[in-house]
Amino acid sequence: MSRVDATDRREDAAAPDATLHSAALDETGLATLLRPRSVVLIGATDRSRWSSMTFQNLTGLGFPGAVHLVNRRGGLVHGQLAAESCTALGVRPDTAIVMVPMSAVGDALADLAEAGGRSAVILTSGFAEAGEAGIAAQARLLAAARQHRIRLLGPNCLGLINHLDKVPLWTAPLAGGRAAGSLAAISQSGQVGHHLNTLGRQLGTGLSHLVTTGNEADLDFADFAAEFVTDDRVRAIALFLETIRNPHRFIAVARQAFDARKPIVVCKIGASEVAALSARAHTGALVGDDRLFDGICRQYGVVRVHSMEDLVVTASLLARTGPLREGGVGLLSNSGGICGIAADTATAVGMPVPALSAEGVAALQAALPDYGTAQNPLDITGASTLDRSLFETTLRVMAREPGLAALVTFADLPDAERDAADPMNRAGWQHMARGIEGSAIPVLIMSCLGKPVSSVAQGIVEEMQLPYMATGLHRGLTALGHVFWWSARLRRGLATPLPATAPADAARPLSEQQALAWLASFGVPVVPTVLAVNEAMAVAAARGIDSPVVLKVASAQIAHKSDIGGVALNLEGDAAVTRAFQAVTAGVPADATLDGVLVAPMRRGGLELLVGITRDPQWGPVLALGLGGVWVEVLQDVALRPLPVAPAEVRAMLEELKGAALLQGRRGVPAADLDRVAEVVVRIGDAALALGPDLETFEVNPLWVCGTEVEVLDALAVWSAA
Amino acid sequence: MSRVDATDRREDAAAPDATLHSAALDETGLATLLRPRSVVLIGATDRSRWSSMTFQNLTGLGFPGAVHLVNRRGGLVHGQLAAESCTALGVRPDTAIVMVPMSAVGDALADLAEAGGRSAVILTSGFAEAGEAGIAAQARLLAAARQHRIRLLGPNCLGLINHLDKVPLWTAPLAGGRAAGSLAAISQSGQVGHHLNTLGRQLGTGLSHLVTTGNEADLDFADFAAEFVTDDRVRAIALFLETIRNPHRFIAVARQAFDARKPIVVCKIGASEVAALSARAHTGALVGDDRLFDGICRQYGVVRVHSMEDLVVTASLLARTGPLREGGVGLLSNSGGICGIAADTATAVGMPVPALSAEGVAALQAALPDYGTAQNPLDITGASTLDRSLFETTLRVMAREPGLAALVTFADLPDAERDAADPMNRAGWQHMARGIEGSAIPVLIMSCLGKPVSSVAQGIVEEMQLPYMATGLHRGLTALGHVFWWSARLRRGLATPLPATAPADAARPLSEQQALAWLASFGVPVVPTVLAVNEAMAVAAARGIDSPVVLKVASAQIAHKSDIGGVALNLEGDAAVTRAFQAVTAGVPADATLDGVLVAPMRRGGLELLVGITRDPQWGPVLALGLGGVWVEVLQDVALRPLPVAPAEVRAMLEELKGAALLQGRRGVPAADLDRVAEVVVRIGDAALALGPDLETFEVNPLWVCGTEVEVLDALAVWSAA
Repeated sequence: MSRVDATDRREDAAAPDATLHSAALDETGLATLLRPRSVVLIGATDRSRWSSMTFQNLTGLGFPGAVHLVNRRGGLVHGQLAAESCTALGVRPDTAIVMVPMSAVGDALADLAEAGGRSAVILTSGFAEAGEAGIAAQARLLAAARQHRIRLLGPNCLGLINHLDKVPLWTAPLAGGRAAGSLAAISQSGQVGHHLNTLGRQLGTGLSHLVTTGNEADLDFADFAAEFVTDDRVRAIALFLETIRNPHRFIAVARQAFDARKPIVVCKIGASEVAALSARAHTGALVGDDRLFDGICRQYGVVRVHSMEDLVVTASLLARTGPLREGGVGLLSNSGGICGIAADTATAVGMPVPALSAEGVAALQAALPDYGTAQNPLDITGASTLDRSLFETTLRVMAREPGLAALVTFADLPDAERDAADPMNRAGWQHMARGIEGSAIPVLIMSCLGKPVSSVAQGIVEEMQLPYMATGLHRGLTALGHVFWWSARLRRGLATPLPATAPADAARPLSEQQALAWLASFGVPVVPTVLAVNEAMAVAAARGIDSPVVLKVASAQIAHKSDIGGVALNLEGDAAVTRAFQAVTAGVPADATLDGVLVAPMRRGGLELLVGITRDPQWGPVLALGLGGVWVEVLQDVALRPLPVAPAEVRAMLEELKGAALLQGRRGVPAADLDRVAEVVVRIGDAALALGPDLETFEVNPLWVCGTEVEVLDALAVWSAA
Repeated sequence: MSRVDATDRREDAAAPDATLHSAALDETGLATLLRPRSVVLIGATDRSRWSSMTFQNLTGLGFPGAVHLVNRRGGLVHGQLAAESCTALGVRPDTAIVMVPMSAVGDALADLAEAGGRSAVILTSGFAEAGEAGIAAQARLLAAARQHRIRLLGPNCLGLINHLDKVPLWTAPLAGGRAAGSLAAISQSGQVGHHLNTLGRQLGTGLSHLVTTGNEADLDFADFAAEFVTDDRVRAIALFLETIRNPHRFIAVARQAFDARKPIVVCKIGASEVAALSARAHTGALVGDDRLFDGICRQYGVVRVHSMEDLVVTASLLARTGPLREGGVGLLSNSGGICGIAADTATAVGMPVPALSAEGVAALQAALPDYGTAQNPLDITGASTLDRSLFETTLRVMAREPGLAALVTFADLPDAERDAADPMNRAGWQHMARGIEGSAIPVLIMSCLGKPVSSVAQGIVEEMQLPYMATGLHRGLTALGHVFWWSARLRRGLATPLPATAPADAARPLSEQQALAWLASFGVPVVPTVLAVNEAMAVAAARGIDSPVVLKVASAQIAHKSDIGGVALNLEGDAAVTRAFQAVTAGVPADATLDGVLVAPMRRGGLELLVGITRDPQWGPVLALGLGGVWVEVLQDVALRPLPVAPAEVRAMLEELKGAALLQGRRGVPAADLDRVAEVVVRIGDAALALGPDLETFEVNPLWVCGTEVEVLDALAVWSAA
């Protein structure tokens, strides 16, 4: 696999002030890549398929700028006179496509810079994807580019296509003809990028841009994503990622897109053990797996999918609909079987299929034959075969339903001219088009089966202005489910990052009591705790508490108190407290400093949560939230998010847990007040963030929840050795 | 939705001796539908699109038999002389396609029978799918068919196609041309059936049969499935179901297919609340949801999918590969991105992607360029662009790997003649074909993107004998995951049904102690329990037990002992036992007969399972297995299977549980001996089955498991009032 070592950018990742763009270099380089007025193909030769294809793309697909060729021997190449160098061209090339051998790339950049070029696509491979020597060569390449103030795309990429402005800096076969779309796709893998472009064509909607970033020696996917977030012609961004070299920039661009309400969809490999082996080495234990990336996507409203088709279909649909209002999905077909499978699929992907309003039911009953049932999903029955206007009447009613956020009906447009001209067919499509005219919600006409849109089908779509998706029912509704999720995520909003105000070393909470006090200073409810240095003080403290008490050994050297018998629960009476004082201190090792014993009221009933903050080496402070006990320890049932989090996001985390139903209460245990829990968890996160970058972990275990009562019973801060 | 009332066959469902075919009628009717020598179209008219299309299919697609037309006015129809009735034909028609109005169907059947017809496809709708009057009309239709000894397909269906023998009894548009396949599809929905046929064509492999069964007044999907199980030309069966009218026949045909190692794949709607509303009314609470159908499919090796595409792709792949040996999947591509997404997808669908043997690694290292890595997934790198023989060398090595059950490589065959003729492309395909020659495991060449196989691509497939799947990577690997599951399921085997030997009423276990004794008589380990009728006896019993004891109130009227304080745990000493005797009997209601108090040793440590047997009104005795406490009560975390079960299947059930990891042990709790648990659960199931059909529920709660110790601590049998 062509994957570069993720460590080579570790210093960037750790930089707290990482900006959206990768370097303080002149950014016009990126603009010259996306919208060059002239291109020079360096290493052009008739003997190379790559060179021929690239030249063919540049000259055959309407690129409006000048195309120059450089071959170190000069002469006629691809039927055009080639210069021996860029400087020999006599004009300034905006950008270059470089396909010379590895050893010649450095000279090519120097020559290009001297001629005034500002950027280059490096097709050449054998760099960081090819082992140690390649990594060193790539470092030299980057140094040369920085020296010459040239921005790089690649190396080891296939180039980019700006469909909107007809810029095909593309080194592989490329078909022309179709109109540009509003979806920008970025792929680290060249071959996958090629497939994404094909998928865009097959859907009939097309891409606005395709960028393959290869090894990302200089410009990376986030640079282009940031550019597309601010480009009004781009309505959605699709990413295919193998590795994320700069996590902070990923988060920064996701945040920017969130604020701009511009959807980002990502397909990132590494979800499996096998594919993640290399990535795994760089991350921590609990948070270092693919689930953290999942949590990051959820946190920042990035839609995550797991196939190339879902990537393009979902992003294309998002580009079409934008954010949806709150509500469910309406489904309408003339087949009971299709209605059934559509309802199942919608439900499986998290879209409600709500009942219709009384007005809607009445209006549909008036339209349907006697044996039809006015409900959602709506089977308009075989009567529509004879009376195509039934589509129009019923779609019009459904499109006005107040409880719906989107409406889907199903039709497979034909590929044969004869079927396209059939009057019954045409009547059906016309009635559909009229039925959805002026709808307040997005309406989609979805094919039952997915296949590439033929030119015949595209003709019908354009003539009748049909909101057609040739994705097939299953893939189309799955994508719509993602649109629902994204829209709901936008409504939940994002937390504002807190300034990290790390306390001076002296103020660092070290003991349990200090950790509790730190939390309390952030408004977190903590259990009242008294430090007793002898038995008498413990007894006195216990007398002041009108419930059984807990005794816990207090020592900064003892992180896991239960392991040494340092906790005694449910104590009543002086004698029990006295005995317990001795018991909990008995196991303290000789080399530990004993501060005393903490006395606190015993809390019973309710349930216990674990709230942990860990510093992930890649992603920074991460919040882990789970149910206590076996849920975390054995089942690893935790939801993960980077900090800070908003209260609504904590509620979403709680809902993700496998054991979520336990929060709804049961015999003897009241339902948890989730708003209160969320508020407290947010404050715990803020308190941990405020401890600054030397905090290694902060663990609240348990956070006790009993109905509306939410209280931290134990807390522990661990500081990094450095 | 066209769904008939599921109650109308309730009597069949309850019949214990339900046979594979629906009635004791002459079965040649089914044979005349699938392989008629002659067909009569009843209700033929030039004014009907249906009639024209049907006639066009019968005459234009190579049907080898005679086609007759009946129109009650006679005359020329579709350019052929129509008879006024079947009897007027003068020859015996094997089967008929009936498209007369509802009111005329009865007469048409009488006429057909008189002419010697044995079966009929009823296109006419308005029967059970159209409300009360339609249900009555359908009952009359069935009565008429039985009277005339005519087997029916439909009503409210689109007919059937036997592609193998060129029999298109099909009333909707149908394209000809492609060869028949070995996959038989059966759909209750006509429109979905049409889509399944289209999908078969698009895959290039095609169907052997398509049967749409509509309302299933007489013949249902199981009749045809049973026929296809015994047809050697059919290698897999795909079912699209909206409702299962006869659960016993579904199970019977699934069992028959399992024994014949013929795969069945099913897409059944009703998984969602919305789609299942009507089905829900007929089934019980715990077992009456879609999860039971899921459990039934797992039990009988029926592959369940949730889209039309997955249905046809999975069944087609099963038809191609048959059962796989044990092992993982090998993945090979010339793109790192494709390798990564393939590994993720394979893992997500449950296919191991194992490491390669030392010999394999050495052989691959010799073949790959220096910078390549010999591993699975195998990225053969861009070097394969110049040297296509790399495909051959590496595929040959991978195909011999002992740890693999299947091997997949990726290539998208072109649609354009020019690309098909390209020498580099052809060299690549030839090398692939040679590399997989003589492989001991199935090798698949999968497209990265799914799209209909063009005639150009089909030509390459046939010329080079490529095992090509144009399904796309994601759908193709998902289907292969199902093949892995099915193959593993075959290896686990099926339990043999026990003869149901219900005990006479007198022997029915009523009390807890009787239930425990019944279990013990089946070799189930139960906790030793003594019935004490007074305090002294309880104390004596407790003295005989060398651990703390449990006291439980014993009364046939008290099912939930804890609710009335009828259980006391962890008792030590005579005084404690005496007090507990009084306490557990104090809450017995006045109208309950107190038998005494059960005394048993207290078991601690380990974990508790719940084993419940419930009688589902549709499916019969169902085993529910889960972890005790909140796992079942709050999280509904149970695995469901119809009884009987085999031990290996119980292990599979345990692995399905969300809390499965708890069985692996944790601090203080030894890992459960899963083989022993499985053995005990199988015996509990057998013991419950042997109680016969009047048993309503049998609940073991808990089944205590502590390492190798497995013991029933409590059991309860509930009998139906009737």
